[in-house]
Amino acid sequence: MAKLTRRDKDYAQWYVELVQRAELADYTPVRGCMVIRPHGYAIWENMQRALDGMFKATGHQNAYFPLFIPESFMKKEAEHVEGFAPHCAVVTHGGGKELEEPLYVRPTSETIIWAMYKQWIQSYRDLPLLINQWANVVRWEMRPRLFLRTCEFLWQEGHTAHATEAEAEEEAVRMLEVYRRFAEGFMAVPVIPGLKTEAEKFAGAVRTYCIEAMTQDKRAIQAGTSHMLGQNFAKAFDVTYQDEGGQRQYVWATSWGVSTRLVGALVMAHSDDQGLVLPPRLAPIHVVIIPIYRSAEERSATLAFAAGIRDALPKDLVVRLDDREQYQPGWKFNEWELKGVPLRIEVGPRDVAAGQAVFARRDTGEKRPVARERIVGEVATTLDTIQRALFDKALAFRRANTHAVKSYGEFKERLEAEGGFFEADWGGTTEQELRIQEETKATIRCIPREGGEPQGPCFLTGGRAHARVILAKAY
Amino acid sequence: MAKLTRRDKDYAQWYVELVQRAELADYTPVRGCMVIRPHGYAIWENMQRALDGMFKATGHQNAYFPLFIPESFMKKEAEHVEGFAPHCAVVTHGGGKELEEPLYVRPTSETIIWAMYKQWIQSYRDLPLLINQWANVVRWEMRPRLFLRTCEFLWQEGHTAHATEAEAEEEAVRMLEVYRRFAEGFMAVPVIPGLKTEAEKFAGAVRTYCIEAMTQDKRAIQAGTSHMLGQNFAKAFDVTYQDEGGQRQYVWATSWGVSTRLVGALVMAHSDDQGLVLPPRLAPIHVVIIPIYRSAEERSATLAFAAGIRDALPKDLVVRLDDREQYQPGWKFNEWELKGVPLRIEVGPRDVAAGQAVFARRDTGEKRPVARERIVGEVATTLDTIQRALFDKALAFRRANTHAVKSYGEFKERLEAEGGFFEADWGGTTEQELRIQEETKATIRCIPREGGEPQGPCFLTGGRAHARVILAKAY
Repeated sequence: MAKLTRRDKDYAQWYVELVQRAELADYTPVRGCMVIRPHGYAIWENMQRALDGMFKATGHQNAYFPLFIPESFMKKEAEHVEGFAPHCAVVTHGGGKELEEPLYVRPTSETIIWAMYKQWIQSYRDLPLLINQWANVVRWEMRPRLFLRTCEFLWQEGHTAHATEAEAEEEAVRMLEVYRRFAEGFMAVPVIPGLKTEAEKFAGAVRTYCIEAMTQDKRAIQAGTSHMLGQNFAKAFDVTYQDEGGQRQYVWATSWGVSTRLVGALVMAHSDDQGLVLPPRLAPIHVVIIPIYRSAEERSATLAFAAGIRDALPKDLVVRLDDREQYQPGWKFNEWELKGVPLRIEVGPRDVAAGQAVFARRDTGEKRPVARERIVGEVATTLDTIQRALFDKALAFRRANTHAVKSYGEFKERLEAEGGFFEADWGGTTEQELRIQEETKATIRCIPREGGEPQGPCFLTGGRAHARVILAKAY
Repeated sequence: MAKLTRRDKDYAQWYVELVQRAELADYTPVRGCMVIRPHGYAIWENMQRALDGMFKATGHQNAYFPLFIPESFMKKEAEHVEGFAPHCAVVTHGGGKELEEPLYVRPTSETIIWAMYKQWIQSYRDLPLLINQWANVVRWEMRPRLFLRTCEFLWQEGHTAHATEAEAEEEAVRMLEVYRRFAEGFMAVPVIPGLKTEAEKFAGAVRTYCIEAMTQDKRAIQAGTSHMLGQNFAKAFDVTYQDEGGQRQYVWATSWGVSTRLVGALVMAHSDDQGLVLPPRLAPIHVVIIPIYRSAEERSATLAFAAGIRDALPKDLVVRLDDREQYQPGWKFNEWELKGVPLRIEVGPRDVAAGQAVFARRDTGEKRPVARERIVGEVATTLDTIQRALFDKALAFRRANTHAVKSYGEFKERLEAEGGFFEADWGGTTEQELRIQEETKATIRCIPREGGEPQGPCFLTGGRAHARVILAKAY
């Protein structure tokens, strides 16, 4: 098997090779669209299962809204159409005829959903309305990249309706916290929850919250967003409710989403030059057992021993016993390392004789013998240890690569020399923010929720700072 | 609450009212597209979970392919494009520009999937390739009907590749059997597995297998199809493999699918004039507990007793304790009957005093007291009983409404007078088959796999019969 391009040589090339070679996804003949292959889709299914459980535990129900949005609906919220319409795919013909009104393939579903909410919401008793949708969406991308930016992607979009501003705000923050818990607890990716600036917020939102993660090449990757939409869509679609006093009030809204981009963020967080490194809580295969033998006699002894281990492991673990004849153990090691299986168990004739097997951790490469009677318990412990170790390592990496800067000069110099996240006090305008992007390719990623108050003047203008922000180059 | 239109008065009207009033689905402002509301989507999720487990147990993996199919791909298989292209939605603009080549919104994914299989299949070692996709598809419908026929619908489509014709045939039949087991075991809907005639088969298939169910108005509803595609798509997309002898061979294919139409079939199979009747294995809520009280004292006693029952029931059941203050018990009974909850448990002050609760079955209306200590066991037994009773009732209904006919005259007369399924010996041509449809609105639903040999001459022509078929009017 040819080796992957090394990360330190060309990180972007390493990423695209890895995604294809590990059979997570592939380019297709359809411009900008990818196919998610079974190994990649299994990661997404595990993500869905975890997130869906968290959404339901916070009172949300799933539903499904149309793929197509009439052009006139897209146009009802002014900022929204301006932000999204230029990036849409448009259906002009259906059933062999030209349509009277073009249909936009949904880039996000606020407009069609709020058109339905108008029919469903009459009274305060109908609120809150807490709905989530798992769906595909399409946003035309000029520079597609597997998982990170594709014309079509899979996601979930929550859309909630509330009686008061306070409840909507609480919901937007609650779902941001759900995303943070998912990223950190399942993906083992530490994230910074924060608020987007005006320049970076969702088209149609009052406020956009986000979680930002750091990749191994020290860039930021936005891993989820939660929007407080105010009454913008309620007003655009005339959605009101009768309050307890009999008065009609506009409804307050949120929306929030994460997408298959998370698979890309996951790959970028932990993987190495040998292939994928996956956290046990999302890995499609937890343990691979590889028998090592040279003779038919050794084969039957190691296979029987290996099968005994497989059968003893708990049913909630996905365990693969690789008994393929046509491949050598070394080839198998490489393949399962490429595919990111967290724990490999090797069983050779001497192990059988000694009543043990050898555990090899994918993340550290550490190998150690484990006595047969301790294997079941040690598998559970080792997977937990790997899950924690991945998070700790990613957190240490982010901390080591996050720098406080006091001036624009210092920022530019260190961004160029070292990269990473930069904390700075900010009091500039949107125009100045866009100029930073133009000059440095970095953007204000967010105003961290736990970033504290500004400690000095604006790092750009020297004027009064109103927030402490994180800046970085981003995917 | 206004009553539903009665089934015996207007079955079609009853169906559409029920789907909307039970909040399964709703029409949208997007022509022909529906929204699946949380109660309907929860049924679909339960269907997905059961089917997905059955697919994985038969060795299939999930993946995801692009929504869009380039026009040139659609055109590669001659019958396929003729069958599907006229019913497609077509994207002509993307990212603000007219596209060089129009993109079809997938009506089914054979073409894009086989374009990818060409890249993934080289050797006999790559076969069989057993992939399933959960996705939305679009087929322009002139007369949309909620769940049964909508422009966009959700489905799964399996696409498999095999080395030999025998293996592909075996797969097509295996998945038909999976569908039969699902329909009968989960939906409690008896189905007839059979083969479609040439006139009714999938555009691009060699053979189409199907399962056909009977609705309460004695029509047929196709509930799933499994296609043996031969080498048609392999040849259209030039997909070959190297066999063990080093020769290149075209690959053999199957595809198979069921859709959200199953939710419509489920509603039509069991529901009544009071609302939905859902089989416990697919019901979003299994048990509703309703406390009945007149005073504050009674309220606290019945609520505590009811909560005790709820907390004692096993966690794999979804149990709702309806403690809403603003509604009377009778109103709640009606609502949960409309929503199809299989078992209602009523708790009044006298029940509390007697240490019992009253079980009311949704399917039969039967009510009986159950002693507190026996409730947990009786809930499980009652749900099992309901599941079986629904199947038995539907099977008895289908049997009572299936008639053997010997002549076209007898068929037309009884079809008009009684409706139902008609068994007949068939030796006619496709032209004659289409004439039957024109004259009677009935079609040959299938050649049942267990229908046996013809017993006499063709019921239409009097000539030699080659198959015993089922005819019926269909949804």
